[in-house]
Amino acid sequence: MGGKSLLRGSPHPPAVPRDSDVQSWKLEDNFKLTRVGVTNLMKPVSIMRPSGAVVLVPTIDVFVDLPAELKGSHLSRNVEALAECVEGSFCETATSLEEVCARMARELLKRHGYASVAEVHARADYFLEREIYNGRTSLERYKLIARAIAHRGPPVDVRKLIGVEVAGMSACPCAMEGVRELLIKQHPEQRRFLESIPVMSHNQRNIATLIIEASEDAKVEANDLIGIVEGRGVSAPTKELLKREDEAHLVMDAHGNPKFVEDIVRDILRAVVERYRDLPDTTEVIVRSESKESIHKHNAFAERVTTLGELRA
Amino acid sequence: MGGKSLLRGSPHPPAVPRDSDVQSWKLEDNFKLTRVGVTNLMKPVSIMRPSGAVVLVPTIDVFVDLPAELKGSHLSRNVEALAECVEGSFCETATSLEEVCARMARELLKRHGYASVAEVHARADYFLEREIYNGRTSLERYKLIARAIAHRGPPVDVRKLIGVEVAGMSACPCAMEGVRELLIKQHPEQRRFLESIPVMSHNQRNIATLIIEASEDAKVEANDLIGIVEGRGVSAPTKELLKREDEAHLVMDAHGNPKFVEDIVRDILRAVVERYRDLPDTTEVIVRSESKESIHKHNAFAERVTTLGELRA
Amino acid sequence: MGGKSLLRGSPHPPAVPRDSDVQSWKLEDNFKLTRVGVTNLMKPVSIMRPSGAVVLVPTIDVFVDLPAELKGSHLSRNVEALAECVEGSFCETATSLEEVCARMARELLKRHGYASVAEVHARADYFLEREIYNGRTSLERYKLIARAIAHRGPPVDVRKLIGVEVAGMSACPCAMEGVRELLIKQHPEQRRFLESIPVMSHNQRNIATLIIEASEDAKVEANDLIGIVEGRGVSAPTKELLKREDEAHLVMDAHGNPKFVEDIVRDILRAVVERYRDLPDTTEVIVRSESKESIHKHNAFAERVTTLGELRA
Amino acid sequence: MGGKSLLRGSPHPPAVPRDSDVQSWKLEDNFKLTRVGVTNLMKPVSIMRPSGAVVLVPTIDVFVDLPAELKGSHLSRNVEALAECVEGSFCETATSLEEVCARMARELLKRHGYASVAEVHARADYFLEREIYNGRTSLERYKLIARAIAHRGPPVDVRKLIGVEVAGMSACPCAMEGVRELLIKQHPEQRRFLESIPVMSHNQRNIATLIIEASEDAKVEANDLIGIVEGRGVSAPTKELLKREDEAHLVMDAHGNPKFVEDIVRDILRAVVERYRDLPDTTEVIVRSESKESIHKHNAFAERVTTLGELRA
Repeated sequence: MGGKSLLRGSPHPPAVPRDSDVQSWKLEDNFKLTRVGVTNLMKPVSIMRPSGAVVLVPTIDVFVDLPAELKGSHLSRNVEALAECVEGSFCETATSLEEVCARMARELLKRHGYASVAEVHARADYFLEREIYNGRTSLERYKLIARAIAHRGPPVDVRKLIGVEVAGMSACPCAMEGVRELLIKQHPEQRRFLESIPVMSHNQRNIATLIIEASEDAKVEANDLIGIVEGRGVSAPTKELLKREDEAHLVMDAHGNPKFVEDIVRDILRAVVERYRDLPDTTEVIVRSESKESIHKHNAFAERVTTLGELRA
Repeated sequence: MGGKSLLRGSPHPPAVPRDSDVQSWKLEDNFKLTRVGVTNLMKPVSIMRPSGAVVLVPTIDVFVDLPAELKGSHLSRNVEALAECVEGSFCETATSLEEVCARMARELLKRHGYASVAEVHARADYFLEREIYNGRTSLERYKLIARAIAHRGPPVDVRKLIGVEVAGMSACPCAMEGVRELLIKQHPEQRRFLESIPVMSHNQRNIATLIIEASEDAKVEANDLIGIVEGRGVSAPTKELLKREDEAHLVMDAHGNPKFVEDIVRDILRAVVERYRDLPDTTEVIVRSESKESIHKHNAFAERVTTLGELRA
Repeated sequence: MGGKSLLRGSPHPPAVPRDSDVQSWKLEDNFKLTRVGVTNLMKPVSIMRPSGAVVLVPTIDVFVDLPAELKGSHLSRNVEALAECVEGSFCETATSLEEVCARMARELLKRHGYASVAEVHARADYFLEREIYNGRTSLERYKLIARAIAHRGPPVDVRKLIGVEVAGMSACPCAMEGVRELLIKQHPEQRRFLESIPVMSHNQRNIATLIIEASEDAKVEANDLIGIVEGRGVSAPTKELLKREDEAHLVMDAHGNPKFVEDIVRDILRAVVERYRDLPDTTEVIVRSESKESIHKHNAFAERVTTLGELRA
Repeated sequence: MGGKSLLRGSPHPPAVPRDSDVQSWKLEDNFKLTRVGVTNLMKPVSIMRPSGAVVLVPTIDVFVDLPAELKGSHLSRNVEALAECVEGSFCETATSLEEVCARMARELLKRHGYASVAEVHARADYFLEREIYNGRTSLERYKLIARAIAHRGPPVDVRKLIGVEVAGMSACPCAMEGVRELLIKQHPEQRRFLESIPVMSHNQRNIATLIIEASEDAKVEANDLIGIVEGRGVSAPTKELLKREDEAHLVMDAHGNPKFVEDIVRDILRAVVERYRDLPDTTEVIVRSESKESIHKHNAFAERVTTLGELRA
């Protein structure tokens, strides 16, 4: 049957026998689509980590493109591919969430013969044992961000994206200088001392995001990205478990390292340039920092969308 | 037709002529329901304030109870009642969101003859001009919470609930003392000075909630509740617009008034007791404070659910 | 130091040596608090199920009450208790999320000697293998809801709450009768046939919630609750993986079992009464159904909050 | 002072007198930033519509870029610009939300002399009176999406984006054919009749998005976009207020116009091509459709990101 009548939004499907594989109906004179698929899937996925198998529960979106002449994409194939992946057949040896995405994207191109591009997006809560103070440790939570985009080629080209979202702490350098001035005005005899110590500022939860997009075989490890954000980005990392002395140390650390959202983004960029000398210039890099300002109802935000090549220039 | 077969989940509706007013079908041997209605309605509502008409855009939930013998509640009557209210007929002189809720609840009892209770819940963004420093002002945003519950009686009894949610700032008194100890250890010669000033602490956005439930004619004004939370509750109010000097003043103010979530709840309770001497002992009071801790990924929380009578004891 | 000056919100902490265990400062003439604790904790928890260990990643809120004379609750003890539970010491043999909550609540009473009540709330994604059609299976997702409330006694009394949230499908019985009337008007010669089959209606995703609160040793199994909601509550269960024929069967099943939100709540209540004959009359039961109406922008909602005793009367 | 030491994350700010205008500190050898600003601002904005002034309450994000040599962006200037706009000085004659964004973006370039690009994003609830059946009307709610991006030039070039998000209804054409086959198998004698009428299918709330990006003076009206989505896109528009007969008509209309998410996107694209013949080929167009599938826990999704030129080819 012709696609045209369908396109005109005919108020009633025509009363003729028809194929119930509606997705395969042919269309004429229509538009291709950039991405068609399913969003908000959720499945436990087992990943092989050096320390053993880890179960993640990502929320997953899965898409392929659709050529102009096909009425619909077979969405159940996406869910089937994920089910098979999860039940162990072709993802069982994956060592990271982005590897699961990459394998899924390759598989989607196989199952959707009409598609030229496949995309898989995933986000998952992720936990890492981190040191606090005095050698004690605490299990800290992060968000993993993973994506894969496969182009059919030949050969099939897969790019993947590895990212982390980290809740850290930011202390404002500007308010600290303003407070210092006020304190010196109140206590001019203490100017010297007040100029030598960190003083009060506003500080708050900062959500810092670091995403690196690279070819399928590029070696980028999520734990390293978390290390960069916590060690080089935020004023101080947040910790779930702090005893009284730990709290004081953390507050001192953060105020000894005051940072704007701008500073956080730039310092992460610098660390990325230093750490990933082997990745090519085309490597895409996205860094973002958003502070839930304690003195405002709105947030402060900074972002850089770039490539390693631009950063190296 | 009998209700029983329906209750058994018959796989197919019986092939007999039937009344399409399905809600009015009679059931036997079934259960009454506590609340049946519609949620997530949204309508602009005009409120008469001393300063003129103000338009709020609340999200509204509307319920009545349902007796055991009725299959369904006529949900479109809820939407009709709200539409008439909004379009001006019976809410146009309302001076507050909780008055709109109370009038709606009375109206619902009229329209649902079978109901013995009607409930209306509303939440809306709300804006108030507030002073910053130096006499300048800024438009600050809040959440209004309003509810009304009408019991048929006779006479119809309506209780209403007036509440506000305020994003303020909290500075931790415990971490401040810990930091003071550390600073004194580092600078023992400055002990005296360091004991005389507020020092660094962690501070963060705190969401404080104050809700008072009272009889329909009780005089409680949302602006006063906001005044209590900002003036007596949080370490300092947040402000949307702060110049550099203002920021420093606000940070100093907050650190000069360090508070746990527990302190915030208690100080609001005290202010409520002082402010509402005329309200009866049965007046319900809910106070809540939640800090988006800058040093943790989790929040700190305190709450008191009580009555004025208990607070006065 | 006296509590009074603190309560007055003194603008500056007094310049005297003080104990940095600020939480333990004594207050005079102040208010007790209903619940003080931490919200939005997240930790992977291992549960022993008949089929083996299952890892859940609940979001957890933890509270104790606070007497009037204590300035603060030691919030880090809550996080420590959870960390020890998670790392295996005292929760490792727990067979359900509500059992983890119950053990946590008992532990909190030990660690907060001043508290008389402890509460633990948890919510987690949960997955179950379910049959589709033709014997195939699909991994379906649900929400688990678990709570425990411990009163110190003696003896310590723990009540727990077990609940599930299920995304099912509801088809409207009222619109179906309206459509039937319209079809008969258009095709009067087909009246008999049209009265014998289910016809079009609006159908949509329905979120049904079933929660049972019972004493610590009451036997209520989350999988059974899911079975009740899917088998007796909604018009039909939703499925993640459906081939074309399956979709048609599911749509037929749902339209052969059309239900208001009211019907869903009542049919679940009936199944609960039948299934839990051994639980005492005091057992609290909450059933809720919310339809994301396909024909409206708002939702339809029904709820019953009751006890098994009331339902049996 | 040199930027380098700051970049190294020195654990302590140097003990020298310094300028408290920290944002203006000069950096060496650092990175420019793509966007720096504030997110989650909220202000009531008055728009002049043909029918009179309308108050919208958008959530607003405001950014400028930042050159490599400046430490920080003066974020309070963003809030000041918005406050002046809201209080009537330079936005008072704006006739649309995107015009407010465009004026704001121009203003930001004035206030941030160092910036070469300014961006303003806004989203707001929006209400329109729509016909139901029988000439009655109902106030329906939508989301407006507006953006403006200003490049300094000279001359300053402003592009704006106008979009709407509409909750409509989608009925699945594939499940309808599957159900038809099943019904014919059960009632082979009724094949002819069953092939002549729409039959049951799954249907659900569909969120359709249409966004057009164009030069500052392009004439695109949000109400027209809503008309396209409701009239040409979804199977049927949703309505807040439906009496029993209306519900049946709406269900019949939707099943007489069954659509995949793919169909919805394509039919909107076609309508856009027909409606906006005067806009240039460079006009960017984004169309998206997401169905909250009633038979699944996940959503179906389709999207096209393109230009009018590509669509016309």
